[in-house]
Amino acid sequence: MFKFEILKKSKKSRARVGKLTTDHGVVETPNFMPVGTQGTVKTMSPRDLNEIGSQIILSNTYHLFLRPGPEVIREAGGLHKFMNWDKPILTDSGGFQVYSLAEKRKVTDDGVEFQSHIDGTKHFFTPEKVIDIQSAFGSDIMMPLDECVPFPCDKRVATEALIRTTNWAMQSRRYVSGGKPIPGTLFGIVQGSTYPDLRKRSAEEICALDFPGYGIGGLSVGEPQEEMFGMLEVLSQVMPEDKPKHLMGVGFASDILGAIDFGMDLFDCVIPTRLARHGSFLTLEGKTSIRNARFERDFTPIDSECDCYACKNFTRAYIRHLFWAREILSMQLLTIHNLRFFMRMLAKVRADILAE
Amino acid sequence: MFKFEILKKSKKSRARVGKLTTDHGVVETPNFMPVGTQGTVKTMSPRDLNEIGSQIILSNTYHLFLRPGPEVIREAGGLHKFMNWDKPILTDSGGFQVYSLAEKRKVTDDGVEFQSHIDGTKHFFTPEKVIDIQSAFGSDIMMPLDECVPFPCDKRVATEALIRTTNWAMQSRRYVSGGKPIPGTLFGIVQGSTYPDLRKRSAEEICALDFPGYGIGGLSVGEPQEEMFGMLEVLSQVMPEDKPKHLMGVGFASDILGAIDFGMDLFDCVIPTRLARHGSFLTLEGKTSIRNARFERDFTPIDSECDCYACKNFTRAYIRHLFWAREILSMQLLTIHNLRFFMRMLAKVRADILAE
Repeated sequence: MFKFEILKKSKKSRARVGKLTTDHGVVETPNFMPVGTQGTVKTMSPRDLNEIGSQIILSNTYHLFLRPGPEVIREAGGLHKFMNWDKPILTDSGGFQVYSLAEKRKVTDDGVEFQSHIDGTKHFFTPEKVIDIQSAFGSDIMMPLDECVPFPCDKRVATEALIRTTNWAMQSRRYVSGGKPIPGTLFGIVQGSTYPDLRKRSAEEICALDFPGYGIGGLSVGEPQEEMFGMLEVLSQVMPEDKPKHLMGVGFASDILGAIDFGMDLFDCVIPTRLARHGSFLTLEGKTSIRNARFERDFTPIDSECDCYACKNFTRAYIRHLFWAREILSMQLLTIHNLRFFMRMLAKVRADILAE
Repeated sequence: MFKFEILKKSKKSRARVGKLTTDHGVVETPNFMPVGTQGTVKTMSPRDLNEIGSQIILSNTYHLFLRPGPEVIREAGGLHKFMNWDKPILTDSGGFQVYSLAEKRKVTDDGVEFQSHIDGTKHFFTPEKVIDIQSAFGSDIMMPLDECVPFPCDKRVATEALIRTTNWAMQSRRYVSGGKPIPGTLFGIVQGSTYPDLRKRSAEEICALDFPGYGIGGLSVGEPQEEMFGMLEVLSQVMPEDKPKHLMGVGFASDILGAIDFGMDLFDCVIPTRLARHGSFLTLEGKTSIRNARFERDFTPIDSECDCYACKNFTRAYIRHLFWAREILSMQLLTIHNLRFFMRMLAKVRADILAE
């Protein structure tokens, strides 16, 4: 089952509050998906995720395909059971990971050949294959194979990638609607680099296939924020309003808050978790390093406004000590806080729109 | 406040069930203390520790002295508040750590000079200083400075260490009873290497000072188990029965179970937590590496008899995957299990004695 309802539209922008219903529960939108690349959100147990209020997580097909492999996950009863997470899971198609992570890759019209970053073995992803893999996972929302391009990108290259992405989307749509039963639902992905006409063309082609929801790919790859927002403005005029939209891989708090005004509903990013592991915590003032000497005797919480386990129970001085002592608990506590910070930020956005 | 009551003596050995009361609560004995070297039991939050049933933890004076330093901990309101652990804490004196860890050390009759393993700075521990440090921590049970010797050890060297340990114990006793207010209670430490006559002499000298409890130091440093048990037999004939006894740094499950029969009450060891971080789990059959290929599709818990969070919620296949993917959650789950395994083992020992 998959359903998206818009509960309230903002009067100030294209922002909206929605409700996304899947077989594994409801997601209030706009929402942020913590990234569980390898079938776990780094340093977090499922109960930690529940406690910070996570309603959906994202996991990476490329990584889970290589290790432990889709057959192990299928035998485990799917990714939800494997990792003991009973709420929705969105998986990407591996396209972006192949583009950014794989040792060597070769894109052809048939798919992508790449070498594993783990052991150098060669693999080939086709549109059909990544759907089969995500079906083994039992993903609630799956993504079709797409081709992501770097920034900046030559227009000819961006156009070729756009065409391939559309062709693969059509192949994927056919594969699924042609009787291939999938456990969740398949989104479409819009590409087009930072060229307004290519973005428009990609959105029109992909949306013509009438997917139940859309990912916006290829943004937040190095372009200035205004350029990203410019693309979102183009897309907001072309894409159907009544479908959920996932701005893939985004981002910083200001990216997310800005993108919501263009009608974006879902976000995912490794920033809050990665920053935590490197010793930084997020507050409304931005990011701050816990390593700083001024926290040595600071016996106040990371963020006195925050209700997370880390802020309710520990001081900056203690977490700083843990960080310098290379204790894993520092990463856990900062991750809990940073993700909870994002959850509270998104909850406030929803509440503010509902209260307009 | 400090009180030790023996609730029941075994009919089969010198084993007993006791109740140790401190300002931070009660410890049922025999019991195992997870090791929180740097003010945290590695990978565990205080709520994890509460959940596995930990009633007391051990922390290391040497490490906390160097980082973050006793003044930071004192300003935080003591170690309990600093790390948010409201149950009892036992701290060692740093003697063993200096012996085993410090780059360079020089023992004189006045104390121990050593170089920090962190930055090479020089420090000097005297009997009075380690009490001051542990007072800053607010330890419920503190240990006096002692001199630990390696195994095997020349008898002359062992005798000199014994004499110093006794002298330092006397100095420590005087320092505390001479009006120096300490937050918890001070134990005595018995040394004597693996020489029965030295063990006897040390026990007599230390117990003559009438401490409220005793640590047995210098065992489990490489000697065969029978030799350790031989020393415990000697000690059991000399030491007062009505005082709690902590067999320091011990050990493997079989060491602990054997030592309980000689009247030992408290144990601490990094084995369960360290094994967990290296991918091994403990069961009644011993230790097993989760890395093993035979667990790739093993969708059963680590230990189907166990009630811990790891065993109740995750499979061997999943934890194996996490381990190979270098995910921190594998260390957390294995640590939870291994400590819970020790907690359950000790709870069973107590129940069995009570049921005799």
